[in-house]
Amino acid sequence: MDFVEGNICAPLGFQASGVLSGHKDELQSDIALVVCKGHGTAAAVYTQNQVKGHSLLWSQAVMAEEGPIHAVLVNSGNANCGLGVQGDEDTSELIHWTAQQLGHLPEEILMMSTGYIGLPLPVDTLKTNITEAVQTLNRDQDAARDAADAMLTTDTSRKVSTVTFEIQGHMITMSAMAKGSSMVQPNMATLLAVITCDADVDGDFLQDSLTKAVEKTFNRVTIDGETSPCDMVTAICSGLANNPRLQLKDPSSDPSDLKTFTMAMEGLLMRLARLIASDGLGATKLIDVRVEGAETEQDAYEVALNVAQSTLFKTAMFAEQPNWGRIMAAVGNASAVVDPNRLSIQVGPLSVCQHGVMVPYDLDLADRILSNPEIIVTIHLDRGAYTDHYWTCDYSYDSIKFSTQFQA
Amino acid sequence: MDFVEGNICAPLGFQASGVLSGHKDELQSDIALVVCKGHGTAAAVYTQNQVKGHSLLWSQAVMAEEGPIHAVLVNSGNANCGLGVQGDEDTSELIHWTAQQLGHLPEEILMMSTGYIGLPLPVDTLKTNITEAVQTLNRDQDAARDAADAMLTTDTSRKVSTVTFEIQGHMITMSAMAKGSSMVQPNMATLLAVITCDADVDGDFLQDSLTKAVEKTFNRVTIDGETSPCDMVTAICSGLANNPRLQLKDPSSDPSDLKTFTMAMEGLLMRLARLIASDGLGATKLIDVRVEGAETEQDAYEVALNVAQSTLFKTAMFAEQPNWGRIMAAVGNASAVVDPNRLSIQVGPLSVCQHGVMVPYDLDLADRILSNPEIIVTIHLDRGAYTDHYWTCDYSYDSIKFSTQFQA
Repeated sequence: MDFVEGNICAPLGFQASGVLSGHKDELQSDIALVVCKGHGTAAAVYTQNQVKGHSLLWSQAVMAEEGPIHAVLVNSGNANCGLGVQGDEDTSELIHWTAQQLGHLPEEILMMSTGYIGLPLPVDTLKTNITEAVQTLNRDQDAARDAADAMLTTDTSRKVSTVTFEIQGHMITMSAMAKGSSMVQPNMATLLAVITCDADVDGDFLQDSLTKAVEKTFNRVTIDGETSPCDMVTAICSGLANNPRLQLKDPSSDPSDLKTFTMAMEGLLMRLARLIASDGLGATKLIDVRVEGAETEQDAYEVALNVAQSTLFKTAMFAEQPNWGRIMAAVGNASAVVDPNRLSIQVGPLSVCQHGVMVPYDLDLADRILSNPEIIVTIHLDRGAYTDHYWTCDYSYDSIKFSTQFQA
Repeated sequence: MDFVEGNICAPLGFQASGVLSGHKDELQSDIALVVCKGHGTAAAVYTQNQVKGHSLLWSQAVMAEEGPIHAVLVNSGNANCGLGVQGDEDTSELIHWTAQQLGHLPEEILMMSTGYIGLPLPVDTLKTNITEAVQTLNRDQDAARDAADAMLTTDTSRKVSTVTFEIQGHMITMSAMAKGSSMVQPNMATLLAVITCDADVDGDFLQDSLTKAVEKTFNRVTIDGETSPCDMVTAICSGLANNPRLQLKDPSSDPSDLKTFTMAMEGLLMRLARLIASDGLGATKLIDVRVEGAETEQDAYEVALNVAQSTLFKTAMFAEQPNWGRIMAAVGNASAVVDPNRLSIQVGPLSVCQHGVMVPYDLDLADRILSNPEIIVTIHLDRGAYTDHYWTCDYSYDSIKFSTQFQA
């Protein structure tokens, strides 16, 4: 698997476009469009929030029909959520408008939305922008870049990644673009992402692969402990690479090929997950909270999550203080078997607490480690062999400032 | 039950003192001392954090012996936590020093600590301050005020409350002092508090009463979702009011007397809980998140907690935005049965969302409501008859600033 320069249109069979309204506030009505000319084999993972936006409900209904997906429509600036019957009607109108212009059926189109909750969709503006998006569909770099930019709201950077790998001598290309910098919390999709790939796969395998990759990547990112009603990740395969079809339950599929595909998906999404964590609202640092020596898999997960979510820990990281007392307190609050007297903590390579007791450490070295843009905190529970980790970011003045400015 | 002017020494049989070191940072070595001359019937509730400070472990061991408690020693500035054998030895040394000077047994003394984790106790300074505290014990207002002030760390205001009530014609006085403004999260004691009372009660009843009162008050406050290893609430009764003894399992105790006592305790701690929430680190507002119409008791609790803990909700309250989309998203994340289409939300008296859909509201009125120092947010789930609530505060620039300055 190689990470390469590329974009959402790098896999065979995809075109994209983005229409930018020039606003990044409640007037934003950007449109990103991705169109698949091949098989349109699709899979998706959705938010676990019980409140769900109207676009997400549309997409879930379409996916339940298990037909091909030939387009993904993304609007940003408006979450299309909490609008009752009007929300469903507006969604349907936009989907039909898009379908007509693309020459596809409405049920071949997914819709994703991100932005303010509770504001009616600016239907007329969006229709105008959709028309422009359809007319400017292209597979060149500019079109793909515009699509990636149109997804963003409070994000400060574009989030794209591309990998290539081989299946039985056939070169496969897989790309993704994502949005996410606030209301990002795991145990669900946690953001919007579109993955394109030219492999020939069946739907069951694609879903299995996507679910596994999301679990290890997007489900290991927390920024503010919140989940939006609109989070969704979708993967679409054109099949134009002409590889022998990868199928979940077909013995003719080589298991190592299936593994190669899933590993590529995981690698791709891991890049995006790191980009999302480091672009957390107001963040100045990417923090990787690693847990070792847990008694169970669940314990490792709970401890990593509890520390990564601790606002006091995150402000200490912003202040560049190796405040292991806050880490210890957060570990002690986890629903996990923790023996304080066996607990050890490292900040980067620096041991600050061993078996529950402070280790005198070099303050200058601590300063140097904590001034890095990426910090690894390792917590050893000394209770067993399980490990896990979580990506998060620090919590800064700007985290509050931006959070009061943007309501998305 | 009447709330009256009073202090920790208002009940018969109590003396107090406070020694202030003049620092509110890692050099702080304040001592508060409360001494009980009567029965010394005691009860306590402790943190549920798996990491526990050395003072808390001492107090738990003493309480397990079920003997009388005649003094509570509080030091602030140092959590006495994460120090291994040294921490236990230092604790023992300070307890024995205090016992000797008071003429009590070590096992009659509880110890509470709050402050930095992982720094060795400044034993010599604390011994000097303990000696001064013993010498200045008094039951006048100044001594009680100094004791209340000596408990504080990042708190910006003293937290005391006094109630009086009658049991069988005997006037009972109950007082409390508390500390708490950061690392405050429920499902445990969440802070330090000392309650003094001159009623004659048995230990089982006092423990029952304290546990119930804490559940409804301190366990309904969240500031930052964190719990310290040192949180502890203790109640001590002198018995000098000479009422017929209140006993949990004795049929001669009038149930309405038991209820009166527990209600008084609850009223007292409710005042302190509100003071703690409104003095949250950097807070500008007290917020009461109320949940109505839940299907189960647990559902009501989970929804209230989830909203009260939401950092995006709390920053919206700081920005004075009636951002119900964030409330809705936080409700949808709770482990509770929620039907988005039946969900209604009010900010103060203002309806902003009804049955999952935005209600157009008067922006000027919203501004006026949200500029108040106390805001009630009511969430109606329309699923059943259970209610609950949580106190929290907003999340401001100063929440981050103070959190980076203080490591307690």
